[in-house]
Amino acid sequence: MSYNIFGHVFKFMTWGESHGVAIGCVVDGCPPNIPIDAAEIQKFLDLRKPGTSRHTTQRREADLVKILSGVFENDDGVLVSTGTPISLMIENTDQRSKDYGEIQNQYRPGHADFTYQNKYGIRDHRGGGRSSARETAMRVAAGGIARQVVPNIKITGGLVQMGDLKINYENWDDAQISQNPFFCPDAEMVPKFEAYLDKIRKAGSSVGAVIEVRASNVPVGLGAPIYAKLDQDLASAMMSINAVKSVEIGAGSDAAALTGEENADQIRIDNHGEPFFLSNNAGGILGGISSGQDVIVRFAVKPTSSILTKRQSIDKFGKQVDIMTKGRHDPCVGIRAVPVGEAMMAVVLADHYLLNRAQNG
Amino acid sequence: MSYNIFGHVFKFMTWGESHGVAIGCVVDGCPPNIPIDAAEIQKFLDLRKPGTSRHTTQRREADLVKILSGVFENDDGVLVSTGTPISLMIENTDQRSKDYGEIQNQYRPGHADFTYQNKYGIRDHRGGGRSSARETAMRVAAGGIARQVVPNIKITGGLVQMGDLKINYENWDDAQISQNPFFCPDAEMVPKFEAYLDKIRKAGSSVGAVIEVRASNVPVGLGAPIYAKLDQDLASAMMSINAVKSVEIGAGSDAAALTGEENADQIRIDNHGEPFFLSNNAGGILGGISSGQDVIVRFAVKPTSSILTKRQSIDKFGKQVDIMTKGRHDPCVGIRAVPVGEAMMAVVLADHYLLNRAQNG
Amino acid sequence: MSYNIFGHVFKFMTWGESHGVAIGCVVDGCPPNIPIDAAEIQKFLDLRKPGTSRHTTQRREADLVKILSGVFENDDGVLVSTGTPISLMIENTDQRSKDYGEIQNQYRPGHADFTYQNKYGIRDHRGGGRSSARETAMRVAAGGIARQVVPNIKITGGLVQMGDLKINYENWDDAQISQNPFFCPDAEMVPKFEAYLDKIRKAGSSVGAVIEVRASNVPVGLGAPIYAKLDQDLASAMMSINAVKSVEIGAGSDAAALTGEENADQIRIDNHGEPFFLSNNAGGILGGISSGQDVIVRFAVKPTSSILTKRQSIDKFGKQVDIMTKGRHDPCVGIRAVPVGEAMMAVVLADHYLLNRAQNG
Amino acid sequence: MSYNIFGHVFKFMTWGESHGVAIGCVVDGCPPNIPIDAAEIQKFLDLRKPGTSRHTTQRREADLVKILSGVFENDDGVLVSTGTPISLMIENTDQRSKDYGEIQNQYRPGHADFTYQNKYGIRDHRGGGRSSARETAMRVAAGGIARQVVPNIKITGGLVQMGDLKINYENWDDAQISQNPFFCPDAEMVPKFEAYLDKIRKAGSSVGAVIEVRASNVPVGLGAPIYAKLDQDLASAMMSINAVKSVEIGAGSDAAALTGEENADQIRIDNHGEPFFLSNNAGGILGGISSGQDVIVRFAVKPTSSILTKRQSIDKFGKQVDIMTKGRHDPCVGIRAVPVGEAMMAVVLADHYLLNRAQNG
Repeated sequence: MSYNIFGHVFKFMTWGESHGVAIGCVVDGCPPNIPIDAAEIQKFLDLRKPGTSRHTTQRREADLVKILSGVFENDDGVLVSTGTPISLMIENTDQRSKDYGEIQNQYRPGHADFTYQNKYGIRDHRGGGRSSARETAMRVAAGGIARQVVPNIKITGGLVQMGDLKINYENWDDAQISQNPFFCPDAEMVPKFEAYLDKIRKAGSSVGAVIEVRASNVPVGLGAPIYAKLDQDLASAMMSINAVKSVEIGAGSDAAALTGEENADQIRIDNHGEPFFLSNNAGGILGGISSGQDVIVRFAVKPTSSILTKRQSIDKFGKQVDIMTKGRHDPCVGIRAVPVGEAMMAVVLADHYLLNRAQNG
Repeated sequence: MSYNIFGHVFKFMTWGESHGVAIGCVVDGCPPNIPIDAAEIQKFLDLRKPGTSRHTTQRREADLVKILSGVFENDDGVLVSTGTPISLMIENTDQRSKDYGEIQNQYRPGHADFTYQNKYGIRDHRGGGRSSARETAMRVAAGGIARQVVPNIKITGGLVQMGDLKINYENWDDAQISQNPFFCPDAEMVPKFEAYLDKIRKAGSSVGAVIEVRASNVPVGLGAPIYAKLDQDLASAMMSINAVKSVEIGAGSDAAALTGEENADQIRIDNHGEPFFLSNNAGGILGGISSGQDVIVRFAVKPTSSILTKRQSIDKFGKQVDIMTKGRHDPCVGIRAVPVGEAMMAVVLADHYLLNRAQNG
Repeated sequence: MSYNIFGHVFKFMTWGESHGVAIGCVVDGCPPNIPIDAAEIQKFLDLRKPGTSRHTTQRREADLVKILSGVFENDDGVLVSTGTPISLMIENTDQRSKDYGEIQNQYRPGHADFTYQNKYGIRDHRGGGRSSARETAMRVAAGGIARQVVPNIKITGGLVQMGDLKINYENWDDAQISQNPFFCPDAEMVPKFEAYLDKIRKAGSSVGAVIEVRASNVPVGLGAPIYAKLDQDLASAMMSINAVKSVEIGAGSDAAALTGEENADQIRIDNHGEPFFLSNNAGGILGGISSGQDVIVRFAVKPTSSILTKRQSIDKFGKQVDIMTKGRHDPCVGIRAVPVGEAMMAVVLADHYLLNRAQNG
Repeated sequence: MSYNIFGHVFKFMTWGESHGVAIGCVVDGCPPNIPIDAAEIQKFLDLRKPGTSRHTTQRREADLVKILSGVFENDDGVLVSTGTPISLMIENTDQRSKDYGEIQNQYRPGHADFTYQNKYGIRDHRGGGRSSARETAMRVAAGGIARQVVPNIKITGGLVQMGDLKINYENWDDAQISQNPFFCPDAEMVPKFEAYLDKIRKAGSSVGAVIEVRASNVPVGLGAPIYAKLDQDLASAMMSINAVKSVEIGAGSDAAALTGEENADQIRIDNHGEPFFLSNNAGGILGGISSGQDVIVRFAVKPTSSILTKRQSIDKFGKQVDIMTKGRHDPCVGIRAVPVGEAMMAVVLADHYLLNRAQNG
């Protein structure tokens, strides 16, 4: 939440450009003695990595993560965190910078080219440089570690809307998510998404999406009012993901149209004497603090701006140009945002788990 | 963005409970030699203060702000900031704590009572204590100072939806906003909102709202990727406001349904050789950095949870109870969130203006 | 450690000028359910407050602290912290600004007048404004709260050198510290300090001092390498006190003249199977982390720059002037730095106690 | 100043263990368009690197730094910073972990073994792991970048004391520093240091040192009171260096023995109408803000704890043991602390240069 660093006590810093030597992150503040398994982290990276289906960019990146520090064998021979910074690195292998050569001095509409150049007076134009969504790979890696910080936490993300096609929430089935290339929890929508996205891709176009991420088994009490509210930090986390244009908690923007009676989640006591809520419009967060209900976040991802259709723009010399981006791109970049959203949920919860422990023991 | 402190270099910290002695904030990092006029800050506070129309809570608070430090007369006899912390305080005058006595041990549905009690094991229950929206008065005060940091900045907030009634954006007229009790920019909607909210209030109910805040004359280059993106910090700022459930930038969640051709804002050169955009789906932010277009943020506010209808809940002893909140409340708390949203916009822009100056001179 | 805020998770922010309306601080991140007793905090303030003997400034300040937020009666009727910001304020009563009128435009040698004016282009010159040691009263108040965060902690500060007169460490007796106006642990030195300081005061001069602060019962494991080392944060804390020019941990600068054999504290096992150290050159900190030994910090305080002897300086118009400061000042400001040093030790330990709990449970 | 991250707006984070795969750092917040030359950074690293004379450890590390991100060719073909994170890495080549094998479970006296093990329950024992002074190589690398941030800044460090041998300050000659293996500015002391350290080394012992670092051409106005004072942050920076036990600014601890007349630096106007000071007891800092005089910091480094003499200690099973550290070590680790002290001075000044620009334009 400060430049290239995210988090209060569980922090990570990312570095690297899309077509540089490598990208990486350093996780600071991780508790010691947590098993850190590169293969486990790799699984999450593989979910995000490009080129796994025709529905994502055909750039081929092995995205193999290396752990450079912060882990050591414990007495049982298991690699665990030592409490010192965990440095993770992915070397870039398939860079094909030549694809981008001709737009070196042009500002692709909808991209950060214009603002980076104007802010810094210089930019690494190759594949978007620092502004590329490639940076999100390191979030996924950091998230792979964060997931292990909060005991029993379960985080599940799914694509709930593509273009104007929305899933039927009543069909939500966690088990479906890994069964299709869209991370879609509604099996009925999969063929529709497939047909729709094929059409988009063949037209050289792109389309947006909405992602929902849910966390179960979140302890009551995470979140630190007033300016480190759990929902605030989730909004910050999700909005920091490339191309995200909105963040909603629980009922989200629909809450505007509800009455007080409809919106406020009523509470009862179950047979074991435990409190439970009759609904979850709050998205598991009251007054910025987790209530023990599922934490639910949704975010909209705009369509990839790199498309095969000519668009009007300018170059850095102030000349008007038409731009068509020929590189290999995602027809719906929102798909690959699912594991990224999960990772950011994991990071925020880990951070707040530790922050709460600091203040409340 | 860390506990009760918001901001990177222009920071403010708020303190105080709804029914305590006073509430306050301290602004740190304000540039020196900026005119600080209590009367000017008071104007913004008066816009937010309760009891100004039948459409807001009838709690009467003068909300008179005092400046306790950080200002001094310059050589021209004008009170200006000195670069040291500016301490602002509002004494609470109309507290009527007795109104709340009977819910001392009960958790009002939709409120933070449950989570505060579970997190901290204690809470100031009077009027919601620290979780009360009364805290937002200090944001408005801090915002009054922040507005003066970025030269020529213009910040305008309006209520664009109440319940399921939405304004017609084509009717947006800044001048209308101060002419009605709803901060509504669409004159045609005012009588409809009035009738609608009267009905809601008389029914002892409440309703949500959507607020849009726009900033003009924002310099190009504000925002610090990757984890202090301008949109990220705006999302953080707005989501930290009590009762906010969603934040959108520019096209927001509608971007999900757009194609790449529709979404990416094309750029041209005007007659003065200056770049301009043909649309503003980006909400003035590309890659986390301001583009010079208007920065546009929208957020949804849930309906007040304190209503005159009985709701099911529990008390802190684990007993099931029915709760009806008799205090004086806002039928649409979203109305008074307009000046708060403006203030948070001002604070984020001031912070990033200084942060950008740090790195880029 | 960022502008006017100190601390990582247990933080406090101070505000106010020497001759303004009031000074104050806000403590953020304090654990809940800690008894907060204004009378208890007042005791520490009374130790620091001016005018208690002929050896300190004759400015009379009641220094009465008020608690404005963050505390509430628990079920036993005891005022305890609620986990929200604790706002503390002291109203200034004996300001006599006229004393300072004539040096409004002059830079007192050794003071911050020159640098504040050049940095900010404006300053509150009255009594040094923000740069006055009066700010340290709020550190003492914050320290009064911090002392309660780490269980069983015992913090003891003493004056160990005044001018070139040093105590005999073999005479150190905690019980003596409260028995003399110098916070001196060596009873034999008290009459010598008295005579010496009377002479200094009557000559219109001033003199420096060295303070040592010790903390016992510090848990093993406080300190977060590499850049939040316990000794680093203590150095930061002590050097931030007005007029402090050096900070030493354990053997301090004497360590330079030791050999490896002499310096490294050897470890043995006591009769209860617990480790103990044969010496404490490390000052209770190894690798930035507390070892369980007493944490020992020393700092040197320069002589008050405000003296009754004419000194050469300039004014803000660039004219050479001679300055003699007629206000009421401390002949040895180091004396009143003792409770301030204790407070900063308390704050650093509380902060690291919580920070360690975050990472290590 | 928070875990493994140092700095407010110009920040760097270090990672890596002494005998891990690599060590590294990421510099965040560096202004764009600053020439970043790996060869230039390498020069500073070469000054710190081990094995360059018989007076430092015989561990051989090439210490070759690689730049992995954050730089790009500008229009003139010069590699410059882009404003994004600059990732630097040094691969470890000469690790010889076997040297340390037998002390895997033992706590070397004076080392961090005891505290790391007790804090984290695990540690990388190889060569001290994270607590090794090897980490300081990355500070030197970060400092190599920081030096270019403040225009015209000149930073010079020298060894002014070894054991009980002190230089004669009147002999200080910057040009001498690079002419001897001790970074000693007093040519007369060099043969004495040589003879002394040969004796120490042959005895299998070690000795401490005092380093002084000076910065010239520091602009007036750097430093942000109250809790980001320039001297405070320098104290924090220097005390964070391994083995440092004291930090002094200007007259330092000697200030305790001065009178007010002696201590406060008088000010005059020179022939060009510019203010100048008649002395520099303040070390270039008044009220936490730079005055334009040379900024002067001194710090004491304790003797290396790894010596060839048996010392009493315990192991992690609570058994008493005698330890003799056979690895290759520095007889006076203070020597190699000179470039580290310079680097930390550079980092603090760069950070405050940017921080001041944020607030004061």
